[in-house]
Amino acid sequence: MSDQHAFDVDTAVAGAGPNFSATITDRWSIGPHANGGYVLSVCLQALGRVLDKPDPLAVSAFYQRPVVPGPAEVCVETARSGRRLATGEARLLQGGQELVRVVASFADLSQAAGPTAVSGSAPVLPPPQDCLDLFSGEQSRDSGLETPGIAGRLEYRTPRLPGWRQGSPSGQARAEFWLRLAGGRQADTMALPGLVDMAVPAVFELGHYHSTTIELSVHVRARPAPGWLACRVSTSYLIEGYHEEDFEIWDSTGQLVAQSRQLALLS
Amino acid sequence: MSDQHAFDVDTAVAGAGPNFSATITDRWSIGPHANGGYVLSVCLQALGRVLDKPDPLAVSAFYQRPVVPGPAEVCVETARSGRRLATGEARLLQGGQELVRVVASFADLSQAAGPTAVSGSAPVLPPPQDCLDLFSGEQSRDSGLETPGIAGRLEYRTPRLPGWRQGSPSGQARAEFWLRLAGGRQADTMALPGLVDMAVPAVFELGHYHSTTIELSVHVRARPAPGWLACRVSTSYLIEGYHEEDFEIWDSTGQLVAQSRQLALLS
Repeated sequence: MSDQHAFDVDTAVAGAGPNFSATITDRWSIGPHANGGYVLSVCLQALGRVLDKPDPLAVSAFYQRPVVPGPAEVCVETARSGRRLATGEARLLQGGQELVRVVASFADLSQAAGPTAVSGSAPVLPPPQDCLDLFSGEQSRDSGLETPGIAGRLEYRTPRLPGWRQGSPSGQARAEFWLRLAGGRQADTMALPGLVDMAVPAVFELGHYHSTTIELSVHVRARPAPGWLACRVSTSYLIEGYHEEDFEIWDSTGQLVAQSRQLALLS
Repeated sequence: MSDQHAFDVDTAVAGAGPNFSATITDRWSIGPHANGGYVLSVCLQALGRVLDKPDPLAVSAFYQRPVVPGPAEVCVETARSGRRLATGEARLLQGGQELVRVVASFADLSQAAGPTAVSGSAPVLPPPQDCLDLFSGEQSRDSGLETPGIAGRLEYRTPRLPGWRQGSPSGQARAEFWLRLAGGRQADTMALPGLVDMAVPAVFELGHYHSTTIELSVHVRARPAPGWLACRVSTSYLIEGYHEEDFEIWDSTGQLVAQSRQLALLS
C-alpha cells in the first residue's frame, strides 16, 4: 500500500472533468454520515483541478442532504478565471441527487502584498506535549489511526478536559486547543477549509450533541507553517435552535491562517 | 409617482423566471459602481420569487466583477426545496457576463423552535436622537433622500464622529452605530442581508478607503422589530491587503437579527 495519508487518498477525485468521480470513505464519518469538512475537502480537490490558482481563499458550502460512504460525483464549473482570482462551483452528488454545493474563489496567497494590521491574537496554550489528549483523556497515546471514524484522523490536545467530556457541560460554548491531522500529514491551504469543521462543536459545552451544518464559509488567510495548529472555536448565539460557530486556525508561528463561520441547526 | 420606497423599486425583478430582468439604479452607488449589498438584495428578490420560504436564512455572495447602473439579468435555479429549507442560486449578469453569484437557503423563521442561549450582547448606544448624523456631522438634518448615491438611502446615527470622518483614523477598526433605511422603509429579513454591506467599512478607521468585497456571507437570525437597527462592525485581521469584516445587526428590542462576515481586498 502507499504511504499517502488518508486525507489525500480519501479526498482524491478521478476523471478529466468537469464531472469527477470520488469515493466517500467511512474513515471521516460521524455515525452514518461523512463529516462536512471532509466532504468540502473532496469538492475543493475537484475545484483545484480546474481552477488555475493554488489556494482556496474564500469558500462557501451549502449542505442540503447528508453524505454517506460510497461513490460520489463532483460536477465542477468555472465561473471566472481572472488575473487575481479564479472562481468556480462544485456540486457533490450521490445517486444522481445533489447533496452539497460549494462556491469558491482561489488565489495565489504567495502573491499577496498589501498592508497588515492585526488586532486579534493567537490562543495562548501550553505546549502540545503538556496538554491532554481529548479522546483518551491522558497526556499521551498511540496514534489514533486504528480508531474508526473521524476521531482517528485527527490529533487533538487540550489544556484541560472540557466539561462535556466529563459529563458536565460548562455552559461556555468556547474552547482553545491544538489540532493536526494524524499520521504526520501537514495541513496546507487545501486542508484548512475542511479542518474548521472537523473539531468538536462548541455547542457540546451547552449540552447539545447533535447539530447539522446549513452553510459554512471559510476564508484562508495565509499558508500555514508546519506543526500543530492552535484553534479557537466559539458559539455566541444559539437562537431557537439555530446557531453560528466561529472557528480560527493559527499556525505554529502564531499567524492566523484560516477563519470560518457556519450556521447550523440543532437536531 | 408611487409611494414605494427606493429599496423596493430598485431591487424589483421582472419576468416569470427563471431568468428575471432588473434595473440597477444609480441611487445605491459608491462612485461608478453599485453597492454590493444592493446588488445582493436584487439577487435575493429573484430567489424569493422561486423559493417557497420567506426568509433568507443563509446567504453567500461571490463578487466577481463590479456592477454598474443599467439593465441586468438575474438567472435563478432551485437546488433543493425541502420541508425546512429551500436552497437556490442566482447569477447576476450585465451584457451577458456573470458579475455576481449568490447561493442562499431560505427558511420560515416564524417556525423556528429550539433552545436559545445567547452570550453576546447588543451595542450600548445613546438613543438615536442623542447621536450625531454621520454624514452631516450634526445632531439632526433633513432626510437625505436628495443626496445622490447610497449615502442618501440610509440614515446613520453615531454616538461620536469616527476618527476618519475628522481626518484622523483611530487605528481601531470597530464601530457601533444606528442604521435604518431612509424614507421610513422598515427593514425586514429580505433587507437585512444587503444592509450588512451598506454601512461604512471598518477599515476606514485604519486609513484605508477603498476595499472590494470578494465573498460575503450573511446569516439572518430573526425577523426584526420595527425601528432603528443597532449595528456593530469590526475588522480584526488585515493581512497583506486582505481583511475580514464582521457585522451584526440588532433590532430595537435588543435581539440579534443578522450576522455577517465578508472577505475583502484593499484596492
